[in-house]
Amino acid sequence: MEKSSPIGVFDSGVGGLTVVRALMERLPWESIIYFGDTARVPYGVKSEETIKQYAKEIAGFLLRHDVKLLVIACNTMSSVAYETVMSLSPVPVLEVIGAGARLAISVSRNKRIGVIGTPATISSNAYARKLFQLDSSVKVVSQACALFVPLVEEGWLDHPVTRLTAQEYLRPVLAEQIDTLILGCTHYPLLKALLKDVVGEGVTLVDSAEAMAELSYEVLWEKHLAKDSFKPAIYKFFVTDLPLRFQTMAERFLGRSIEGNLEVVRLPL
Amino acid sequence: MEKSSPIGVFDSGVGGLTVVRALMERLPWESIIYFGDTARVPYGVKSEETIKQYAKEIAGFLLRHDVKLLVIACNTMSSVAYETVMSLSPVPVLEVIGAGARLAISVSRNKRIGVIGTPATISSNAYARKLFQLDSSVKVVSQACALFVPLVEEGWLDHPVTRLTAQEYLRPVLAEQIDTLILGCTHYPLLKALLKDVVGEGVTLVDSAEAMAELSYEVLWEKHLAKDSFKPAIYKFFVTDLPLRFQTMAERFLGRSIEGNLEVVRLPL
Repeated sequence: MEKSSPIGVFDSGVGGLTVVRALMERLPWESIIYFGDTARVPYGVKSEETIKQYAKEIAGFLLRHDVKLLVIACNTMSSVAYETVMSLSPVPVLEVIGAGARLAISVSRNKRIGVIGTPATISSNAYARKLFQLDSSVKVVSQACALFVPLVEEGWLDHPVTRLTAQEYLRPVLAEQIDTLILGCTHYPLLKALLKDVVGEGVTLVDSAEAMAELSYEVLWEKHLAKDSFKPAIYKFFVTDLPLRFQTMAERFLGRSIEGNLEVVRLPL
Repeated sequence: MEKSSPIGVFDSGVGGLTVVRALMERLPWESIIYFGDTARVPYGVKSEETIKQYAKEIAGFLLRHDVKLLVIACNTMSSVAYETVMSLSPVPVLEVIGAGARLAISVSRNKRIGVIGTPATISSNAYARKLFQLDSSVKVVSQACALFVPLVEEGWLDHPVTRLTAQEYLRPVLAEQIDTLILGCTHYPLLKALLKDVVGEGVTLVDSAEAMAELSYEVLWEKHLAKDSFKPAIYKFFVTDLPLRFQTMAERFLGRSIEGNLEVVRLPL
């Protein structure tokens, strides 16, 4: 492992590509290996034991590819399997929940913070726990938004159905006078414009993907792992199953083509 | 294997329980073993090779449990893996697509038939192929409805968002003057009341779960496999992963509790 080694980013599917996109923008010189477990997505409906096992397998795969930093870009794995990955990794491990929670604490003025995510993330209570740990005076309002991921995957990013759904989900959250809303799912950055409309000017949206990119920047510098050569960044994407859908989604998430850099890895890893 | 042996029903998750419910109503004396592959759901986003492999494993598991009939209650497996399961099974195999298509042909008068399903089912073209095979004069109008499964799982069975979504999906289908609409996904029977409202009186809804129950009844009699004892039916449910969600969903789908009859089987099978 060297300074020129890639950052390893992993997710249960395509969602973590919002983190890749934020990393590409914040650290354009750093190489990235992405692993999306498309054969076994979604993780949110699986048991903790299963999720830990999968996270271990993926982290092992990325470490064998000589990554210098592991970024867990999946909320479910972050909440369930962070300790598991930490315990086996010789390189630093970052997870998306801590990154989002830290940024939310720093931007909120009234300490009333909303969190939206998948049912699995919300019922794990991982964001609320992390927020309390950082500031015990904070008031957290959580809301599961099961339909946002399918709406994003349907491409209804600015659609009356999505707006009506967002209004329905966010009504009870906004009633609690929050001034900050954490987008606690890697798909949600694609709904940012619509959500901004629905929450209004008084609420700051915290994008976990951007928070993670910022944190990665800091950690690479702190640990003297930042790349110091002028070679261009290399991007490589591994998935466990390859439906046509993935490529379409990837282009929507990244805003660029990944053709030629995509490889299917067969399970078991 | 005997006449008192159970019917084996399998699906990638919870959706096939609508078929179980229809079987319980049509064949109340028959025992049923259900297998839901909740650790690997959904199949619709996986490759054909992967789906065939999973179907083979599950069929093998049910055959080891001495079933007398295999019912593929999953549209994705029906379209991709029916031949695979047939080739390894010593007992009759029924699949949900053929059952729905046959019923649709028999009820349609103008031979203009709509099909709705998940993106995977619709893009497989399996219903259209089956309908043409049964009656080459038929006109088929297909529409993928990616959001219906998540809407059912959110419990929004009669909700303005679901209604708006259904209107949006069905507008182009209804414009084609269909008189019959196949609900080509095991989740959709739970939306029947709302869909009936949206399509209006002139369109007959074909519920694949009911069609499958009718077909199972016929095949059991034809093959002399119908149960002829007075022992009460036994229901047994196997899943590959057990989130709390499953029990909630199962009760919504079956309209009864399955507590005590549910068992988790660890992968690999």
